[in-house]
Amino acid sequence: MIGSHAPFLTDVPFEVAVERFSRTVGEAIAGYDAVETVPLDDALDRVSERSVFARLSSPHYHACAMDGIAVRSHETHGATETAPRALALGSTAQLVDTGDPLPSGYDAVIPIESVRIDEAGTVSVRAAVAPFAHVRAIGEDLVATEAVVTARRRLGAADLAALAAAGVTEIAVIRRPRIAIVTTGDELVDPSVDRPRSGQILDSNSVLLAAIVRRAGGEPRTTLRIPDDPDAITIAVTAALPSCDVVVINAGSSAGRDDYTAQVFAAIGTVLVHGVAIRPGHPLVLGVSRDAQDRTIPLLGIPGYPVSAAICAELFLEPLVERLGGREPRDEQRFDVTLARKLYSPLGEDEFVRIVAARIDDRIVGVPLRRGAGVITSLSRANAMVTIPRFSEGARAGTTLRARALRPAATIERTILAVGSHDVAIDLLAGDLARHGIELVAANVGSIAGLVAVGARSAHLAGTHVLDAQTGSYNDAAVRRYLPSQRIALVHFAQRQQGLIVARGNPLGLRTAGDIVRTRARYVNRQRDAGTRMLFDAVLAREAIDPVSIDGYDRIEFTHLAVAALIADGSADCGLGILAAARALECDFVPIASEPYELAMPASSLEDPRIVTLLEAIAAPALRSAIDALGGYDASRSGAIRTIEPAA
Amino acid sequence: MIGSHAPFLTDVPFEVAVERFSRTVGEAIAGYDAVETVPLDDALDRVSERSVFARLSSPHYHACAMDGIAVRSHETHGATETAPRALALGSTAQLVDTGDPLPSGYDAVIPIESVRIDEAGTVSVRAAVAPFAHVRAIGEDLVATEAVVTARRRLGAADLAALAAAGVTEIAVIRRPRIAIVTTGDELVDPSVDRPRSGQILDSNSVLLAAIVRRAGGEPRTTLRIPDDPDAITIAVTAALPSCDVVVINAGSSAGRDDYTAQVFAAIGTVLVHGVAIRPGHPLVLGVSRDAQDRTIPLLGIPGYPVSAAICAELFLEPLVERLGGREPRDEQRFDVTLARKLYSPLGEDEFVRIVAARIDDRIVGVPLRRGAGVITSLSRANAMVTIPRFSEGARAGTTLRARALRPAATIERTILAVGSHDVAIDLLAGDLARHGIELVAANVGSIAGLVAVGARSAHLAGTHVLDAQTGSYNDAAVRRYLPSQRIALVHFAQRQQGLIVARGNPLGLRTAGDIVRTRARYVNRQRDAGTRMLFDAVLAREAIDPVSIDGYDRIEFTHLAVAALIADGSADCGLGILAAARALECDFVPIASEPYELAMPASSLEDPRIVTLLEAIAAPALRSAIDALGGYDASRSGAIRTIEPAA
Repeated sequence: MIGSHAPFLTDVPFEVAVERFSRTVGEAIAGYDAVETVPLDDALDRVSERSVFARLSSPHYHACAMDGIAVRSHETHGATETAPRALALGSTAQLVDTGDPLPSGYDAVIPIESVRIDEAGTVSVRAAVAPFAHVRAIGEDLVATEAVVTARRRLGAADLAALAAAGVTEIAVIRRPRIAIVTTGDELVDPSVDRPRSGQILDSNSVLLAAIVRRAGGEPRTTLRIPDDPDAITIAVTAALPSCDVVVINAGSSAGRDDYTAQVFAAIGTVLVHGVAIRPGHPLVLGVSRDAQDRTIPLLGIPGYPVSAAICAELFLEPLVERLGGREPRDEQRFDVTLARKLYSPLGEDEFVRIVAARIDDRIVGVPLRRGAGVITSLSRANAMVTIPRFSEGARAGTTLRARALRPAATIERTILAVGSHDVAIDLLAGDLARHGIELVAANVGSIAGLVAVGARSAHLAGTHVLDAQTGSYNDAAVRRYLPSQRIALVHFAQRQQGLIVARGNPLGLRTAGDIVRTRARYVNRQRDAGTRMLFDAVLAREAIDPVSIDGYDRIEFTHLAVAALIADGSADCGLGILAAARALECDFVPIASEPYELAMPASSLEDPRIVTLLEAIAAPALRSAIDALGGYDASRSGAIRTIEPAA
Repeated sequence: MIGSHAPFLTDVPFEVAVERFSRTVGEAIAGYDAVETVPLDDALDRVSERSVFARLSSPHYHACAMDGIAVRSHETHGATETAPRALALGSTAQLVDTGDPLPSGYDAVIPIESVRIDEAGTVSVRAAVAPFAHVRAIGEDLVATEAVVTARRRLGAADLAALAAAGVTEIAVIRRPRIAIVTTGDELVDPSVDRPRSGQILDSNSVLLAAIVRRAGGEPRTTLRIPDDPDAITIAVTAALPSCDVVVINAGSSAGRDDYTAQVFAAIGTVLVHGVAIRPGHPLVLGVSRDAQDRTIPLLGIPGYPVSAAICAELFLEPLVERLGGREPRDEQRFDVTLARKLYSPLGEDEFVRIVAARIDDRIVGVPLRRGAGVITSLSRANAMVTIPRFSEGARAGTTLRARALRPAATIERTILAVGSHDVAIDLLAGDLARHGIELVAANVGSIAGLVAVGARSAHLAGTHVLDAQTGSYNDAAVRRYLPSQRIALVHFAQRQQGLIVARGNPLGLRTAGDIVRTRARYVNRQRDAGTRMLFDAVLAREAIDPVSIDGYDRIEFTHLAVAALIADGSADCGLGILAAARALECDFVPIASEPYELAMPASSLEDPRIVTLLEAIAAPALRSAIDALGGYDASRSGAIRTIEPAA
């Protein structure tokens, strides 16, 4: 029983997996000949299946190219400024407008500005004109039977217009590849479920994979949530085969007890690869089947962890769908990033690390997001990705790496990187900034680490609330200590209440740190360097309590909300944090202190257009009201700026 | 009457026009608050209207992060390799799989690889574990109430997956801006019309503008083909106003007799700009109106010539639609191009010139396409654009200019630039190459100019068929003369028949050049440097005919098809050309000569991967058959290569 858990996955390098799959991909593309005819209005971004030839010439008649008079060119020969030729409107000259057909018997047009016409209708021509001057001759632009668009062209607005001008109103395009997505897993439930039970997993991968297929120009055909049963899965896949061009099973792609993908693929075709040396995404299955019409059907078994699923789909499924559909490869924006933090990566696997990149001064800084195959927020928060090759153990902070943009590169120029203490109201600020085109990305590492990052110019600003126990003042001492050589601006974001977050009704009656010891309450602490932890340490010192006597002093969370979530769930009894977090998770709150939460940044950056926008947003009355409404905040001084001079 | 033609357009510089329109744009964006709620499956590429917060935490329960055993961490304290702790399955340890809920009362997981379990169910633990080791705690990734996506975010696959994981299954997005496109013009007809009459214009702009609006994320609402009548246009615009966010009138934007756009805009609002110093696109009208709800409605009067319409729509309409819909600006790929030809541009107007760009050796060469507001093929054939500012008179050949990619930059790397003689069968080759991802772009400048371009490395290859009248041989002498210092490969494309293209039934009974003189037939010639013109000159010389005695010797077209089109139309009687062109336009054909059409290129380029693909395509039996089927070709030797050594 336990033996069946042992990993049977191979460690095939990425390039080898691509190579082993390439014949299948090539055969599938060569055999993919599905076509449909669509009207021009539905053809934007579709791909032409074959070359399309003009039905009509453009222009399809000799068209006057100017407002003026039509003439017979030979009748203008010899005309000069001093010896103009006289033509008569109605007999040897005709008034024409741009676009008019050239009147029969005429062969040139003289622009109206170049002639004089008297009241009797006599036209004075002062220069000879050549045959077909100022005439757009038949087919000048496009002759009937000429190719208007070639095969395999992704149709843009200009292509559609050219087709219309050539009298072509519908076009044969490559039918969208149909991708069967068979989702398996007893534990999966629909994301709309009101209150999922423990062990139930919201099925976000069906949404992810369908969107990736659509983005690649394919048509997802999703079979939702088949049980973990090889017969049921085989039936679902077999049913999907005839009407699909690719089959994806998600998940069950590993080698564990309930993982049947490889077995199902082996039953209906051939497994080519099971296990690729990439991270995340290791338990990937690649295979091939043939349907009754002898079509080659690529098979992909995609792992269940969301980040693994995304990587495997982006590396193997997306290019397959694009190529089946005849799409050109998209431009990839690549750029250099300076790593803000050390990035360790195990040898032997190509690792794909999502990062947040932002321009700071003359370089682009990259902050690696939390890794782990289950960290779905790393997908949505990233704006770029770096790859650590399998022969590398990673890179030190300050190293320059090549990154690939996951969002428009312009986004990176408009990103503010806030690294420091966590605050719930920052989400509100981020929302307001987004309306002004600025992305505020916050990495929660604690106040001190944030100040250090500002000093290293690996963040634009740090949210900070560091109590100096000796003076009782906030932030000044820490700024002087960690940013001694710079002139620092401290922007007041809000005054906020810190206190004990406790379960509803405060069943243990906690009021002080002493109560925590006395009741043996299970505490949740914040990470070293967090202002909230330093506040707790100051409280303990004031009450002369040894941290060792606090149950859970070593249990670490990185945000106020994470602390509150554990208390709301009952897996902890209390933790220090802000009222807004307690309210959000429906906990009770015992006030301990009021503190300023300030944003520390180099004073010089106050002129950065992004920071100017940020300051305006912070000072706006609407944001202040919204912050006050969270509870536990006083935003009346939001936006006030003070500066701390460098040490002499 | 004539006075009403006089131009009343202003010459407002581009930036001034943008500035005058900016307040209207700003007000329209500020007032644009239309929202709709869509399910995640329909939300790809839509833009979030507001920040969306997690309904559920992720994970929403303490989840085991490994296959292994759940333990109580304090019961593992003190365990070492030499003094393992023994736990009992079922009482102090529980077998768990990844994703299982952490069993109640337990607080950590030990991976299965790290323990030994004997047959009696005793688990040997060899190292202490910390609380919550290998457990994904509630909210570790995302805590309920945290923002999942911020406002104004263009939703990608990862965003949708993150929303699903947070229990959010539908999302409020910005409604697509609705753009009324009122198309006016008595002369416009539907592109599907079987045989349009002279003077009727196929309405390709409705297709163009609708596609540009869709590409920008808007919803076009097209009112087709209103007559050139100010009352009718006003009624159509007034009817469109309440249900639209922007109104576009196309065309009638100039200051001519039937141009009513400015007048209509003045009647329903204010004209801000009429006439912008850009080329093409000068007669642009920008205005503003307000509807009954006091919404600001931007008004755009877009000129009727297709290239003008495209430029005006790309410069003013597309960014407006994108910004109304909350889309981020797209990344623009820019790169340097070396001009292959002189580019003259008048002072006083910013000129937008579409080009074909292709990589040749270590630089990207840009060939300007034919300009003129009516050259619709310049829209579809271009892959990049350069701007000649209004204070510049243009640039010399060889100048480096900054270009903006109109198609994926990768396309430019996969483009083969063929500059030289025109051949109908090249369209077939281009179609086959497109299936292999290669774009073959042919500029028809004639054989000699093509050879010169190859020598200057401003083209990859030149189609050439130059008769040496002295020897009767083709191409060798011209290659030696124009490319004296290079080793040149000549790839045989096809042997083809040249002859007189004449009207059906050959009414003038033309057989020889002498017949042309005798019957005073109207001839159409090809441009200087064209192989076909040189052949005609050789024929005239052989028959001792003075070119002056040929009516139309100076009437120039650039392609076989254009010659045939004029003959088919009856506006010329004959011209020298190939059988395929005669057949395509249903003309008759009198053979004169058989000639090889060869592709000249540096011998060194035979190893360029693009050229390798080209050679394979030329030699493929399917292409040979298709070329033979055109008539007048013998493709039996297609793909044969000979080389001409440089002169000593």
